Amino acid sequence: MNKFSVILGNVGQCSDRYMTGGYGRPFELEEMFERVASIGVKAVEYVGNWHISDKTLNQVLRLTKQYGLRSVAIIPDHFGSDVWGKGAFTSPDAKVKQLAVRETLHMAELARAIDCPLISIWNGQDGYDYPLQANYADADKWLTEGITKCCEDAPDMKFSLEYKPKEPRNHSFLSNVWRSLTLISESGVQNLGVTIDVGHSFEAYEDVAEAAVAAMKRGKLFHLHMNDNWKFWDDDMIAGSIHTIEYIELFWWLKHFGYTGYISTDQYPYREDGKCAVEQSIKWMQAFERAAANIDDKRMLAILAKNDAVESTAYMREILFGC
Amino acid sequence: MNKFSVILGNVGQCSDRYMTGGYGRPFELEEMFERVASIGVKAVEYVGNWHISDKTLNQVLRLTKQYGLRSVAIIPDHFGSDVWGKGAFTSPDAKVKQLAVRETLHMAELARAIDCPLISIWNGQDGYDYPLQANYADADKWLTEGITKCCEDAPDMKFSLEYKPKEPRNHSFLSNVWRSLTLISESGVQNLGVTIDVGHSFEAYEDVAEAAVAAMKRGKLFHLHMNDNWKFWDDDMIAGSIHTIEYIELFWWLKHFGYTGYISTDQYPYREDGKCAVEQSIKWMQAFERAAANIDDKRMLAILAKNDAVESTAYMREILFGC
Amino acid sequence: MNKFSVILGNVGQCSDRYMTGGYGRPFELEEMFERVASIGVKAVEYVGNWHISDKTLNQVLRLTKQYGLRSVAIIPDHFGSDVWGKGAFTSPDAKVKQLAVRETLHMAELARAIDCPLISIWNGQDGYDYPLQANYADADKWLTEGITKCCEDAPDMKFSLEYKPKEPRNHSFLSNVWRSLTLISESGVQNLGVTIDVGHSFEAYEDVAEAAVAAMKRGKLFHLHMNDNWKFWDDDMIAGSIHTIEYIELFWWLKHFGYTGYISTDQYPYREDGKCAVEQSIKWMQAFERAAANIDDKRMLAILAKNDAVESTAYMREILFGC
Amino acid sequence: MNKFSVILGNVGQCSDRYMTGGYGRPFELEEMFERVASIGVKAVEYVGNWHISDKTLNQVLRLTKQYGLRSVAIIPDHFGSDVWGKGAFTSPDAKVKQLAVRETLHMAELARAIDCPLISIWNGQDGYDYPLQANYADADKWLTEGITKCCEDAPDMKFSLEYKPKEPRNHSFLSNVWRSLTLISESGVQNLGVTIDVGHSFEAYEDVAEAAVAAMKRGKLFHLHMNDNWKFWDDDMIAGSIHTIEYIELFWWLKHFGYTGYISTDQYPYREDGKCAVEQSIKWMQAFERAAANIDDKRMLAILAKNDAVESTAYMREILFGC
Repeated sequence: MNKFSVILGNVGQCSDRYMTGGYGRPFELEEMFERVASIGVKAVEYVGNWHISDKTLNQVLRLTKQYGLRSVAIIPDHFGSDVWGKGAFTSPDAKVKQLAVRETLHMAELARAIDCPLISIWNGQDGYDYPLQANYADADKWLTEGITKCCEDAPDMKFSLEYKPKEPRNHSFLSNVWRSLTLISESGVQNLGVTIDVGHSFEAYEDVAEAAVAAMKRGKLFHLHMNDNWKFWDDDMIAGSIHTIEYIELFWWLKHFGYTGYISTDQYPYREDGKCAVEQSIKWMQAFERAAANIDDKRMLAILAKNDAVESTAYMREILFGC
Repeated sequence: MNKFSVILGNVGQCSDRYMTGGYGRPFELEEMFERVASIGVKAVEYVGNWHISDKTLNQVLRLTKQYGLRSVAIIPDHFGSDVWGKGAFTSPDAKVKQLAVRETLHMAELARAIDCPLISIWNGQDGYDYPLQANYADADKWLTEGITKCCEDAPDMKFSLEYKPKEPRNHSFLSNVWRSLTLISESGVQNLGVTIDVGHSFEAYEDVAEAAVAAMKRGKLFHLHMNDNWKFWDDDMIAGSIHTIEYIELFWWLKHFGYTGYISTDQYPYREDGKCAVEQSIKWMQAFERAAANIDDKRMLAILAKNDAVESTAYMREILFGC
Repeated sequence: MNKFSVILGNVGQCSDRYMTGGYGRPFELEEMFERVASIGVKAVEYVGNWHISDKTLNQVLRLTKQYGLRSVAIIPDHFGSDVWGKGAFTSPDAKVKQLAVRETLHMAELARAIDCPLISIWNGQDGYDYPLQANYADADKWLTEGITKCCEDAPDMKFSLEYKPKEPRNHSFLSNVWRSLTLISESGVQNLGVTIDVGHSFEAYEDVAEAAVAAMKRGKLFHLHMNDNWKFWDDDMIAGSIHTIEYIELFWWLKHFGYTGYISTDQYPYREDGKCAVEQSIKWMQAFERAAANIDDKRMLAILAKNDAVESTAYMREILFGC
Repeated sequence: MNKFSVILGNVGQCSDRYMTGGYGRPFELEEMFERVASIGVKAVEYVGNWHISDKTLNQVLRLTKQYGLRSVAIIPDHFGSDVWGKGAFTSPDAKVKQLAVRETLHMAELARAIDCPLISIWNGQDGYDYPLQANYADADKWLTEGITKCCEDAPDMKFSLEYKPKEPRNHSFLSNVWRSLTLISESGVQNLGVTIDVGHSFEAYEDVAEAAVAAMKRGKLFHLHMNDNWKFWDDDMIAGSIHTIEYIELFWWLKHFGYTGYISTDQYPYREDGKCAVEQSIKWMQAFERAAANIDDKRMLAILAKNDAVESTAYMREILFGC
């Protein structure tokens, strides 16, 4: 349980573009902390402004203490305020570009204040909707510049890039694990890594374990977000509700590389009670972790060394069904 | 221009699940009418409750008169109020199922009051998110029963089903043109047809012209919604902003079958001024219509009779580029 | 084991458009029978011409007897001979259209000779590659006419339509379960049903259990083909090698409706030994069947009646991991 | 016409996994040269072994001279001989890995002999089909090592990586433009770049112009392959037969960056005469190039600087339809 955390909003209310008033009722900040704690989870992750800001800092300090929760990461709000509508780090407006850096660094300050080691950046609005809308060359430069500036100005903090192929823009600039690793390499900074969101990775037609290995092999897997989907869109469902084997594969590779970071749920339980939906994700992940622990490394490595799909699937069935 | 209409909300404000407060500013009902009229369009389509209700009926009557707009269709709200969160016609709650019928019939009443001939039903919430969540057999029955009941109780009105493979549910029950035609056939009623939304059809990996022909051949294409996307999701972009040839193909087949219904824009111009975005769609459609008019039917039918892809693409280039 | 069968070619050699000479070595007909039997399977399915023809009839009779195999279905070759390149039942060439019917009826004769009850038709080449290539209205008519003619001329035989959204054509006319049910309904014949290929259904963004229920509810699920894929293409992998929960859902609904037909593997084990790959599919399906048998129907129906995703996923985890 | 070339096999015969004997008739090498030349194209590209080998070298020299064709690139065969079935540079068999390098370097020798400046590597079999089949960490290392070795041992030659998300493997290791740029950067060699195949890029949900800019901005766009598809699969259709605006966008950016490389057709005209299908692609590309030339750079850059989708789509319509 010690490695699992919950993005606070996961136990709150969700809305979508049709149900603009939200499914179910809204929840107060304190209530959300209580809900996370009641699951037995010991760590929490925030969205900037939505959950943590100058105004709520003291409340967050009090509530984390009261509920015995560690602060795992802050996701700066670069997507939910109208100012970011046409991009944050790649906005056509130079002032907005600067604001994106300032907002990130401000979150780094708040992170220090709550003893939180990581800023997980999700460039939701940095992208484009139409062909011939964006200057790809400029945007490429701006994105690297802005992110690098944040990392340089807060060298004590870790920063992490959460890629996603699309939504809310029809095309995101930071679209997959390799685009993220390119930016990280070109930035030249050491405190920059990748946040892999399982659902984003599925949506990018990545095998999520391959993506995680790509990042871990380069020492750059800083954080993980968990949810499930039907492969074509970021459905943000209960982790484990659809896929089984791909999760076990991921957990086995995490074990193999000795991943020690946190693993946060990142869901949109539109029609479920968020607390129950998050609890299910945690339980699935614990089951996957046990399954991965049951895999004999030597045997698995031998299968991989031969690329033997038949033996591999037989072994998975043995792990799952004992036969 | 006479056949084009606009869903009123297209010139209003959009929000999404991250930008819950909306992109840009909201617009009043009157302002939206003014914006539609200013484009030169002569007809308008409504979403129930959002635009037309008992409360706004008189205002709508006044504004349509003032701006010289015909009322083309009402889309009952089966998706934007919390009561529909787990389905309308297929809700697990029997009372909600009945409410879905009542709401539809109430919209039929309002339609009569504004001289509007069509109720276009979009079963946005009728579906499921998870495997083993819905009883597919019951839902199949309920959906046909509810829709049939509406058609029988308002025999003077035309009803039309707008299918969509997913969103807001991860799987919609009414997922494609053939599912719609099955329901229509099984309903036994005559006043039920299909609304083809081009973007929904693309998302379903349909060639939209093939879908339209399927419906027209059976006398069941009652209405059309226009927008564009990148093929994987209902991006609801400016119609024509991405695809060219598939639109020309659609307009040629509409001409060939003598489609006389209205064609409404159905967009979500999150970051654009809705009025300008709708205006662009209309202009693209007019260009496609002219291109389709330039296609010699005899020549095209001869190409189709041979399935000759080479001649066909050469002809399209001739139409587009004159060479 | 009694309900499982194997398409004979699954234990043979595969090629693709790049490896035109095939992966691994080819297998003789007799060798393939031996390989199927050695797995312990008691039934077999054929592709016309590839495995059964006037020339091989006696050999097939001898080998089925020798190995104690029942003949489950024949898939007429409407896709692998150059004559079908531009379509079979919907070919622009009237002679080819007639040949498609004749070939099907000839396979019905051979089926009688080997005591095989089902002709499973896969319209692989009936479709189109380009926009404005096919006359959708004519093709719609021709497809129904041709299939109906087959059913009428061999009323003692069952016929079954295996839909698929694409490949080898970029768009297949018979694209999903609802298109199939429309054709069946419009044919007016009773001996026509659906073959659901799990991978084709996944590729069509169907939940395969929903598709199976749609067919079973109408008494039209005649046959099943099993394989797995990554959801975007008909990868024809070992059934169960990727998906777990969706398979269990399918087997539960098959149990619930009392499906009594055969279930054939339908794979392309390009780089695996086909015998081993098929054996794995059978073992996975047996595991899924046991898992489905472990689901308490009353409890599951109660969950479905509430559309309760949280309880449902918890129950699935209990079934899979006992917790 | 000077910049366009044709992969020789495009005017030959195609087969697929069902039509293993091929659509239409096969063509001799000489006949294929004649067919390319007859279109008016002045350059040609080869697949190793299929078109160029020790055995055919003299014939190729004679035919290129006879038909006045330049040799643009050789694609070594790493995908069509059984030895590569489980990978070339990433094969589990060390001997095959070495053979992949040797084969590539042998093609470099032949390239020198025919005055061809580029080896375009397509790692078709370097990937995996199943989860838990490949050792991603090893494969990552092997791929970079093998490619780097080729570049170092033939420093006078240019090498170029053609990425593709899938097929013939269900997952390719070299899946998108950013994965390619990572490998190039990590290789440390200067003579390594990217071949962008438009259809592969579409299939990877890239905007192909964005991918081309990513490579050009880093001086790494060495080659281009042209074809079209429906976005979900590498359909290898006539370039321009489906998409219009995305092609114009690509050609505008090529102009903007001053791309001077060749542009080869890369199609699989299964059911069309290859010569005619290639000719259509060339004509479409010429039309797109003219359209791109008609775009006023200052005006377009101003639109991009504002991210103005409305002005952009209006401009595209002006370019296409003059209004």
